[in-house]
Amino acid sequence: MPEQMEHESTHLRLSEMNEALESGMFVHVKRMLYQTPPCDIALLLESSPPTGRKVLWRLTDSDMQGEILDELNEDAKTSILKLMDTESLVAATEGLDTDDLANVLRSLPDSIYQEVITQMDTQDRHRLETAMAYPEDTAGSIMNTDTITLRPDVTVDVILRYIRLRGELPEATDTLYVVDKDDLLIGDVPLSMLLTTDPNSVINSIMDRQAETLSANMDTSEVAKLFERHDWISAPVTDDTGKLLGRITIDDVVDIIRENAEHDMMGLAGMDDDEDTFAPVLQSTKRRTLWLGVNLIAALTAASVSNMFEATLEQLATLAILMTIVPSMGGIAGNQTLALVIRGMAVGHISDDNSRWLIGKEAMVGVLNGAIWAISIAIIVSLWKGDPSLGLIIGGAMFINMSMGGLAGVVIPLVMKKYNIDPALAGGMALTTVTDVVGLFSFLGMATLVYG
Amino acid sequence: MPEQMEHESTHLRLSEMNEALESGMFVHVKRMLYQTPPCDIALLLESSPPTGRKVLWRLTDSDMQGEILDELNEDAKTSILKLMDTESLVAATEGLDTDDLANVLRSLPDSIYQEVITQMDTQDRHRLETAMAYPEDTAGSIMNTDTITLRPDVTVDVILRYIRLRGELPEATDTLYVVDKDDLLIGDVPLSMLLTTDPNSVINSIMDRQAETLSANMDTSEVAKLFERHDWISAPVTDDTGKLLGRITIDDVVDIIRENAEHDMMGLAGMDDDEDTFAPVLQSTKRRTLWLGVNLIAALTAASVSNMFEATLEQLATLAILMTIVPSMGGIAGNQTLALVIRGMAVGHISDDNSRWLIGKEAMVGVLNGAIWAISIAIIVSLWKGDPSLGLIIGGAMFINMSMGGLAGVVIPLVMKKYNIDPALAGGMALTTVTDVVGLFSFLGMATLVYG
Repeated sequence: MPEQMEHESTHLRLSEMNEALESGMFVHVKRMLYQTPPCDIALLLESSPPTGRKVLWRLTDSDMQGEILDELNEDAKTSILKLMDTESLVAATEGLDTDDLANVLRSLPDSIYQEVITQMDTQDRHRLETAMAYPEDTAGSIMNTDTITLRPDVTVDVILRYIRLRGELPEATDTLYVVDKDDLLIGDVPLSMLLTTDPNSVINSIMDRQAETLSANMDTSEVAKLFERHDWISAPVTDDTGKLLGRITIDDVVDIIRENAEHDMMGLAGMDDDEDTFAPVLQSTKRRTLWLGVNLIAALTAASVSNMFEATLEQLATLAILMTIVPSMGGIAGNQTLALVIRGMAVGHISDDNSRWLIGKEAMVGVLNGAIWAISIAIIVSLWKGDPSLGLIIGGAMFINMSMGGLAGVVIPLVMKKYNIDPALAGGMALTTVTDVVGLFSFLGMATLVYG
Repeated sequence: MPEQMEHESTHLRLSEMNEALESGMFVHVKRMLYQTPPCDIALLLESSPPTGRKVLWRLTDSDMQGEILDELNEDAKTSILKLMDTESLVAATEGLDTDDLANVLRSLPDSIYQEVITQMDTQDRHRLETAMAYPEDTAGSIMNTDTITLRPDVTVDVILRYIRLRGELPEATDTLYVVDKDDLLIGDVPLSMLLTTDPNSVINSIMDRQAETLSANMDTSEVAKLFERHDWISAPVTDDTGKLLGRITIDDVVDIIRENAEHDMMGLAGMDDDEDTFAPVLQSTKRRTLWLGVNLIAALTAASVSNMFEATLEQLATLAILMTIVPSMGGIAGNQTLALVIRGMAVGHISDDNSRWLIGKEAMVGVLNGAIWAISIAIIVSLWKGDPSLGLIIGGAMFINMSMGGLAGVVIPLVMKKYNIDPALAGGMALTTVTDVVGLFSFLGMATLVYG
């Protein structure tokens, strides 16, 4: 009976291995690693602090190292590639699928990459060059060239005998492709159809001619959207003339979906999605410091707005106490909208056609929530500080800033996208600067008019 | 030759349909919709503002409505279900797969759900009850019961003939399951193996006995992690005794991966991931207002900290101008850490075993970046305000708050997870409150000691 899978098995294994490592039982760990599939070793490595990671890597079986490297995230992969010499790199990457090979070698510094390819055999070098011919983030860079192609004039029976002779199918093969003598893709035949139709049928009469194909230059995020929407398991990749180049499989697409989603989430928090959870302290510090510097400029911009109202602030310290509330609420309202718009862009909901409606809607949500919380804060401040006109001022500023937050939260990412700036990275900071400046200016400005 | 797929085809179609709708060419739109696959109609509906959405829905073919409903996101589905009467609901959901049927009907209010099931035929009702027996977010709720099972003692040839007789395989079938007479799962046979091995082989001798199975009660996010790590296309689901219940396919898992990632991103921005991009204004306002209220409490907490230092603020308006900088930087530093930890939890990197190392690392990153920006702000403020002791004070407060931000950014989500609070939802607000309070308290507190 197959074992019921335990959720926490990998973490249990990690604990056990850590204990074994600490007691110096390297042989035991080596044996455990040998029985662990590459994908789980990759997770173990990613979940290990730098020192443990090095020791674990040295204990892994060299035959598995290529596959493990392919499964690792970018930063963890780079940290491990640094531990390897050219020779072991060449050995580890032998026998990898084309797309996996390209994925691993893309992370190498140029000089080492050159060394590695000169040591490869001709066939591997040729395969690698094919994959590297397409820029990262295009369909071509994640396609595999191991497709099985058929001619339209043979029968199902011939194909079945051919497959039996061949003895094995490439991983995740659910469809065979039909090409003409010039390798132009003319249709496809799902495996399940081979199993269910009359063996005497000719491929020509059973193949699907409407097969949708991906262009090798298509962006991977477009590829991911199509796979997601159409529930594909694999899809063919063709060049501009319609010639079959290879196929993309769902496992690579799942990685892209995960990476794109992580990119948006991490980007909004000012983080690089490549950042390794267990990176060394200095590396993490360096990666994050630039974003903090940008934020310091934004914070100083806000401070220079308050600086314009120094005279009023001197007169009334209460303003200083209350002045952080308005920017904070505008920032949150704007960030809610920003997150909605960035997700909408990611899943392909937003186009020129509906963006005007969306701008109107989000501005209106800002206005309504602005009104609700403006009235609340006006009442709270009037009671707290016993000054109804101060309540009116903060309420008015809150209404202006939250309406602005809603509007800016949708306009900023739309404009950025038009100019090819990534809104997940730059949108949050731009938005906060707007809501800080507008919030402080409207609150302190109105206060100056009344009390100044 | 198959058509090269255009990226923007759906949006072009949306533009064209909108134009046709505006000119009242309903028959034209109806014809276009008839030629559009359900997944693309779902995207069109999701990308349409409320009024357009209603009109589009009325023009869709009723035979496609069940599938379209299944493809829609939660909020869009709910908005459309409201437009349908019980009879058309029953008609639309006829013929859906078990998991899709359950997915659609879960979104109905209880009273209508009861009405719908009484109008279903017995077979459909039975299938539905099986799927609804498992709580949402468990493997059981997304499994399909349309598995093909084999007995271990037959030959490949018998199976091949059986499949040919049967005439069709359930969608995304890549593996057949081998069960004993009590329906206990004893192994599996990939389709590709049926095609490549000798037809005279007995299933018993070629099946994989190590097949990993999912428990029906396993959390869907665990299921997603396993699929992602092992590159599965489908996996069997069993009950506690090992009896085969059904199978889960990659297309449903892709939806879960996308939803979980969206949940984290939207949650960090104070948004519900169910929120429809094109929801009506009032609905969006209502959904977001609670979070804004929570933030108002947090902002008032920060204001009440400044309030404690009113006397000092009265003396020195410069403090008011500078006091927003320290909370801002601490908040950003903390949020960077928080995003890293939430992603680490989502991909399964973080366990009891490595969390202590992670706390140390993130605190250290906070300390180092704190030192860098403390020195910078000290110099900037000394020069700007011509007051080196003020520079020292703000630098000291910055160092304290950014170190605290790093520490809180990792401790808060770890503690929340321990108490089953979702850190993606509550973590950001808790963190900002900590960095606001600590930032204001340390800056204004030190200033009071020096100038007060």
